[in-house]
Amino acid sequence: MSKGAATRQTILTHAAGLASQVGLTGLTIGGLADDLRLSKSGLFAHFRSKEALQVEVLEHAAARFTDQVVRPALQKRRGVPRMRALFERWLAWEQAEVLPGGCVFVAAASELDDRPGPVRDALVTLQRQWVDVLARSFRYGIEERQFRADADPEQFAQDLYGIMLAYHHHARLLADPLAERRARRAFRRLLEDARR
Amino acid sequence: MSKGAATRQTILTHAAGLASQVGLTGLTIGGLADDLRLSKSGLFAHFRSKEALQVEVLEHAAARFTDQVVRPALQKRRGVPRMRALFERWLAWEQAEVLPGGCVFVAAASELDDRPGPVRDALVTLQRQWVDVLARSFRYGIEERQFRADADPEQFAQDLYGIMLAYHHHARLLADPLAERRARRAFRRLLEDARR
Repeated sequence: MSKGAATRQTILTHAAGLASQVGLTGLTIGGLADDLRLSKSGLFAHFRSKEALQVEVLEHAAARFTDQVVRPALQKRRGVPRMRALFERWLAWEQAEVLPGGCVFVAAASELDDRPGPVRDALVTLQRQWVDVLARSFRYGIEERQFRADADPEQFAQDLYGIMLAYHHHARLLADPLAERRARRAFRRLLEDARR
Repeated sequence: MSKGAATRQTILTHAAGLASQVGLTGLTIGGLADDLRLSKSGLFAHFRSKEALQVEVLEHAAARFTDQVVRPALQKRRGVPRMRALFERWLAWEQAEVLPGGCVFVAAASELDDRPGPVRDALVTLQRQWVDVLARSFRYGIEERQFRADADPEQFAQDLYGIMLAYHHHARLLADPLAERRARRAFRRLLEDARR
């Protein structure tokens, strides 16, 4: 990796962690320059605008998410083992120290849902891809006859999303120490329903 | 209602609608003054600081929520009818035109979860009250033997929260036309599980 590319990665990793706390719209090129002791003009050379920076932060986080959650989970056997791996790794991602405010996509979702533009478009594309991974993985489980033939993969994906969003809400905002245990219980119940 | 109190209500109603879109931190006294054609100094006379305004917006929205969701639902018979009413009215609230960006609490939750201070404290108090209403209502249903004796009211409350957050995410961000149908199906399944 060239020095320029390495600096870029450092900036994006820091920016993603910050965005998990203050939101994407809370990021400023000046603030990042201060945090990282870089010149503001140097940061502008990497990202020509705040919007470009925001889009790159989302794409950077999505690449990490693919590395840490999607790719390893897709190496598990189809059906229950793969769905469990997707859930467990998603939960670990949500709790990772590099994202002190939790999942940057969760933070961005309600922040951007009413702000049309390229940043929202990038977020929607990434979120649809993830929902599709969940639904497709579930569909493979139906094909393998591990899940009921009449189960709805998109329903499963939305329900699983809800478990994770409620976990985020109860753990992060309400500081509820039982939030994780309940999320795991809800996931087990969701899988059981699909297998019945 | 005095003229001053009426103006205050007008400001808070408009501010709550705006906060549902741009978030509580996106509210500014100057912006509100422009929108409502009031003087900035007049607005400052009503709310001494941005933080005071944000707290009042949350409390104003919570009072509406109590009027439109909690109070009418608590008039339904305990157990299934009351849980259904809580769910249906919560969904209607989320879709109400006065909140063009959806539930102002959902928007505020991920916005404020990492911003300590009086606004976050007010939000946490209100959200805990609502989660408690859900759990308590479910507990009454157990006492009435409509739900399983070993069902966990806090689990039900977190799961129901997840259904609503996933609905918000899929409908608002992903513009998925089936989001509502899936939310209803998930709620029916949650109730069935509790009755089994």
